[in-house]
Amino acid sequence: MSPFTGSAARTSDWRHVRCVYDNGVATVTLARPGKINALTFGAYADLRDLLAELSRERSVRALVLGGEGRGFCSGGDVDEIIGATLSMDTAQLLDFNRMTGQVVRALRECPFPVIAAVHGVAAGAGAVLALAADFRVADPTARFQFLFTRVGLSGGDMGAAYLLPRVVGLGHATRLLMLGEPVRAAEAERIGLISELTEEGGADEAAKALARRLADGPALAYAQTKALLTAELDMPLAASVELDAATQALLMNSEDYAEFHAAFSEKRAPKWQGR
Amino acid sequence: MSPFTGSAARTSDWRHVRCVYDNGVATVTLARPGKINALTFGAYADLRDLLAELSRERSVRALVLGGEGRGFCSGGDVDEIIGATLSMDTAQLLDFNRMTGQVVRALRECPFPVIAAVHGVAAGAGAVLALAADFRVADPTARFQFLFTRVGLSGGDMGAAYLLPRVVGLGHATRLLMLGEPVRAAEAERIGLISELTEEGGADEAAKALARRLADGPALAYAQTKALLTAELDMPLAASVELDAATQALLMNSEDYAEFHAAFSEKRAPKWQGR
Amino acid sequence: MSPFTGSAARTSDWRHVRCVYDNGVATVTLARPGKINALTFGAYADLRDLLAELSRERSVRALVLGGEGRGFCSGGDVDEIIGATLSMDTAQLLDFNRMTGQVVRALRECPFPVIAAVHGVAAGAGAVLALAADFRVADPTARFQFLFTRVGLSGGDMGAAYLLPRVVGLGHATRLLMLGEPVRAAEAERIGLISELTEEGGADEAAKALARRLADGPALAYAQTKALLTAELDMPLAASVELDAATQALLMNSEDYAEFHAAFSEKRAPKWQGR
Repeated sequence: MSPFTGSAARTSDWRHVRCVYDNGVATVTLARPGKINALTFGAYADLRDLLAELSRERSVRALVLGGEGRGFCSGGDVDEIIGATLSMDTAQLLDFNRMTGQVVRALRECPFPVIAAVHGVAAGAGAVLALAADFRVADPTARFQFLFTRVGLSGGDMGAAYLLPRVVGLGHATRLLMLGEPVRAAEAERIGLISELTEEGGADEAAKALARRLADGPALAYAQTKALLTAELDMPLAASVELDAATQALLMNSEDYAEFHAAFSEKRAPKWQGR
Repeated sequence: MSPFTGSAARTSDWRHVRCVYDNGVATVTLARPGKINALTFGAYADLRDLLAELSRERSVRALVLGGEGRGFCSGGDVDEIIGATLSMDTAQLLDFNRMTGQVVRALRECPFPVIAAVHGVAAGAGAVLALAADFRVADPTARFQFLFTRVGLSGGDMGAAYLLPRVVGLGHATRLLMLGEPVRAAEAERIGLISELTEEGGADEAAKALARRLADGPALAYAQTKALLTAELDMPLAASVELDAATQALLMNSEDYAEFHAAFSEKRAPKWQGR
Repeated sequence: MSPFTGSAARTSDWRHVRCVYDNGVATVTLARPGKINALTFGAYADLRDLLAELSRERSVRALVLGGEGRGFCSGGDVDEIIGATLSMDTAQLLDFNRMTGQVVRALRECPFPVIAAVHGVAAGAGAVLALAADFRVADPTARFQFLFTRVGLSGGDMGAAYLLPRVVGLGHATRLLMLGEPVRAAEAERIGLISELTEEGGADEAAKALARRLADGPALAYAQTKALLTAELDMPLAASVELDAATQALLMNSEDYAEFHAAFSEKRAPKWQGR
């Protein structure tokens, strides 16, 4: 846990998502299976606040984001979100869209890797949540669909027009965001949209195993790798090289780096502490 | 049509390209089939001016760029362009090269999607015109060739050194721009250079169908998706998320968004108006 | 050779790498085969200084970087680098990590294309040296492994968190840098990490042939193509188009461009001079 805590209380009960902890791994589950985990205002707000709390607490070293039931997430709820936004004023509309973007920023900027465990539908905002994760572990039923234009909105929602070209290239990204057509697991693997293709029904288990490995490993090294990947998308080469140098010099003072060398010399496996 | 018109007259006769309109779709054809549509100074100037006119008029909602005869475009004409540039002074050379770049910027920045319909050769400047489009619909005869170094020039012509790495990655882009070797349809599909591979002879028809679909759909949503994809290549994550939020809040006031919800509630297809 | 020489002497003897010249092609070989060419402080320093000398001299027009023995490069030496850094102070650690980054910047910014000839292991810093090259010519034994996290360090070493997403996309880059798993030749080809896959044992020969072709061709055009690819990763579209226009206008005054046109008119092959 971080020593840098203030007055803010820890939230004990997340009402719109399910969150369980297991020795450094948080598993966050979208749990409205009757609606294929359609997102509500409450779910977005909980994701935003949960990621902020976990980021400042330093209590977890990896996070799995999954969906209960027959799909990952069908996106914003047609009634509870699309319907509701139709009667909002300008300030409310901006507030709502900023909140969804904050979730994506939190996923990219939190100091631990995030693994999306995707089976079935990952549509609309659900596709973007998966896209913002560091790893997308998916089974053959996975179907990504950036269907924003199909409801009359911009394909550039929650940072998708920033992230998707950087993951699959501008050509594929234009096609996917403009047309909103489904991307099935095989194509997703071919274009680099998924990190690991599992057997059917195996995404949750594989994501959990990866999270365990990351949490039990040199977690500070992983966190810094993520931070640099996120930051250097927005940085020129010379500055990136300087940031890498400063980061590496810092980590060369870390306990895990010394432990690697000791373990190597003693011909044993390192005991990582994540610091 | 846009209400923001001034004194400038509409050009009624494009002499160096062929342009036909069909209910929101402009089809621009490079039409020098005897020379595989080699570009001339006039063709570049017409493309620059046509795209500027169409952008301010708001008369079209999608544009197809194709080539007549046995190829898409063989690039700058060896006699009429390469030969002519050999006797130009510095200011003229800069003017010429800025003009070609303006065509590429216009393709990326015009407020409607552009679909390149590619069959046969797309070489030199022809390859870059296709690259600057939002969609590349190609048939199996398509052959992209960024052959600038083969005439002693830089592979970074008309923004190619900016665009190509963002479409196919830096490794492939370096190889293609440096060596100027042809990329056939199968490789182009594999590396993400084409959006849709059609049957032989089917590129024009498929491009037309896509343009029709885009023009008849939520065209404002498509235009904004394109604008965000173009802009966010040059923006950091935080600013992109903010731009997405503002754009989405704006579009949530659009007629098409309300129409989607009404149609969904009434279990019918939406009637898009493109606004 | 460049007329812009000063007082600095040319280094006649590189002690930590082997360097041979052949009519415009420099072949730099990591030559510690007993340790799969593990890098030492001296090797990094030699690469930094050699690239600086070659860049200012303008004596070579292409460079091949290869490894002697059964692999390309196994990365930083566990004893001579990892062990030594454990007793360094903060300033020394920063100095070391800046030096390694300077090698990568030099590879990206030198005014000639660099071809990595990869067989066997390209691990850690060895993988990044290959990544920073313009071309990666590899045989089926090639195995790239960004194993920094496996020693407790950041995957973003020497610009890897900047370069790798721009070569293979953010998804693959995250997986490779975070987990440090090996990428074999087939996967490397599939994700765009290698430029040319040769027969087993053929990487050195193919790299040499490519370097010869580049050195004997329009070398100024190649150098400018490289410079623009490097620069425009960090530039917005409008500025890139302007840089392309200025560069192309410049090269339209070059001898090679005139030679292309003369050769084309006379139906003969051009005699390139590289200027």
